[in-house]
Amino acid sequence: MTVLLVDYCEIECVFIMVDQILNGWFSEIQNELWPGQAFSLKLSRVLHEEKSKYQDIKVLDTATYGTCLVLDGIIQCTTRDEFSYQEMISFLPLNSHPAPKKVLIVGGGDGGVAREVSKHPLVEEIHQVEIDERVVELSKEFLPNMACGFKNPKVKLTIGDGFKYMKEHTNEFDVIITDSSDPVGPAESLFQESYYELMKNALRPGGIVCSQGGSFWLNCAYVKKTMDGCKKHFTKVSYAHTSIPSYPCGHIGFVIGCLDSNTNFKTSLHNYSEAELENMKLKYYTRNIHSAAFSLPRWVELFLSNE
Amino acid sequence: MTVLLVDYCEIECVFIMVDQILNGWFSEIQNELWPGQAFSLKLSRVLHEEKSKYQDIKVLDTATYGTCLVLDGIIQCTTRDEFSYQEMISFLPLNSHPAPKKVLIVGGGDGGVAREVSKHPLVEEIHQVEIDERVVELSKEFLPNMACGFKNPKVKLTIGDGFKYMKEHTNEFDVIITDSSDPVGPAESLFQESYYELMKNALRPGGIVCSQGGSFWLNCAYVKKTMDGCKKHFTKVSYAHTSIPSYPCGHIGFVIGCLDSNTNFKTSLHNYSEAELENMKLKYYTRNIHSAAFSLPRWVELFLSNE
Repeated sequence: MTVLLVDYCEIECVFIMVDQILNGWFSEIQNELWPGQAFSLKLSRVLHEEKSKYQDIKVLDTATYGTCLVLDGIIQCTTRDEFSYQEMISFLPLNSHPAPKKVLIVGGGDGGVAREVSKHPLVEEIHQVEIDERVVELSKEFLPNMACGFKNPKVKLTIGDGFKYMKEHTNEFDVIITDSSDPVGPAESLFQESYYELMKNALRPGGIVCSQGGSFWLNCAYVKKTMDGCKKHFTKVSYAHTSIPSYPCGHIGFVIGCLDSNTNFKTSLHNYSEAELENMKLKYYTRNIHSAAFSLPRWVELFLSNE
Repeated sequence: MTVLLVDYCEIECVFIMVDQILNGWFSEIQNELWPGQAFSLKLSRVLHEEKSKYQDIKVLDTATYGTCLVLDGIIQCTTRDEFSYQEMISFLPLNSHPAPKKVLIVGGGDGGVAREVSKHPLVEEIHQVEIDERVVELSKEFLPNMACGFKNPKVKLTIGDGFKYMKEHTNEFDVIITDSSDPVGPAESLFQESYYELMKNALRPGGIVCSQGGSFWLNCAYVKKTMDGCKKHFTKVSYAHTSIPSYPCGHIGFVIGCLDSNTNFKTSLHNYSEAELENMKLKYYTRNIHSAAFSLPRWVELFLSNE
């Protein structure tokens, strides 16, 4: 595609093309998930671009958000704010379980969730299944502070389909974390009710699941639908959220479900001293942030509790 | 300015010009407050544009965020998400005070804060001082669900300078809420230490102040600087935050200060039944959200507590 810009004004003009990189800016693809809004990042340079077997992959060096991984035109993480998402999707379920010894991560090819789960003192084994090997390889090359998660001796990575993997593993895990992209493209199946059934079967008694659950600002009906799918197989289901600037609306949520109806997700079962928090290099997560993440705006509470 | 776009590809291309309205999109001016990032909204149409005595004013009808007020190129509110900011900047201080009878609002020309403060059962008098009459008039025309705040008989609006107004009113108010734009342009003086001194003098004993305090994601040093200015005059100072998609990083904070060192900002002193919440039309604020707003990410806690 060739674009010719003829600009007759004297002030500097910057153009952004939605769904493209243009004049030094990257803008997120517009799609049905966030119509009418766009977030853009100024680029220093494009570090890598390719089409893998599953998706379009871009790695960008941005002016103010560090390194940014983009899959099918959608920002997956930036090194400036990724810790909010990675710490929360990991420690919310891990600290809601009394003894999270064996953990399964589905997706999470950048290694950020593996990095966080490895920090938990009670976790002994981490199994991870990611469908796109290229995401893992490129993260090792361009996102070493996330891909370091794969170096931890607790982590065993399998390249393959999470759906298929789970069918072959029943009654095995204490916690299953699904770190997927949005429900379009390769992650679509990870948002379906049948996926929750598979997770239930893969869990040990008392097990907990936690999945990327979308933002109530973008589409609260979608959050509800995901929770309703989870509720068909789990006795206790809740939604938590966190602030993260590089995701649409600066916000993302997590659907968390459990087989034990006595579980109180809102209170962390494992408390760390300041020295332990420092040693674990936790930047976002605290005991207070854990509880606060489950407090929802009134309209969201009402919407999600409606039958 | 004339811009000629020649597009040789077959797919539809959308162009956004930063700092301008172009091809049906509005993008926020880039400035020192959020370098390297831009948020854009698709427009249905421009409802109004003018330069008032103080600032450039735009009122936009957007595709998915409702009506949007823009001052000097920066989004002030959209009807889709304004309730998060307006309810939190109002009820966090009001519900931290045992008897908030007389309230001063500085800024807030759209009427949203007046609307919220009027809802509080204990508030008897609301005095508001806004510098730009045109913002008030345009809000009455284009944002009736916010400007309705001015219709409440408790509210007395003065067009003038908040700084000057406060010098003439000492020992009068239980709560002072500063609903300002960012610290560039007409609101600059409202972020200075001398402003906190004036507020202190305008308060009655036990009084509380609450100001827009910026986002820790954008500039945590700026949040700290504002808090440090507040701490020179107030014995207890805290920072709370809320999620709001149309502000930079999808996030905004509040600096809240008090003359009574026994005040516990984190716990609401006034509790409402579900029927009362419904009657007050609160969409965001709850007792739980009040407490959660003071829970900060670990790195922010550490940064703000550093002397």
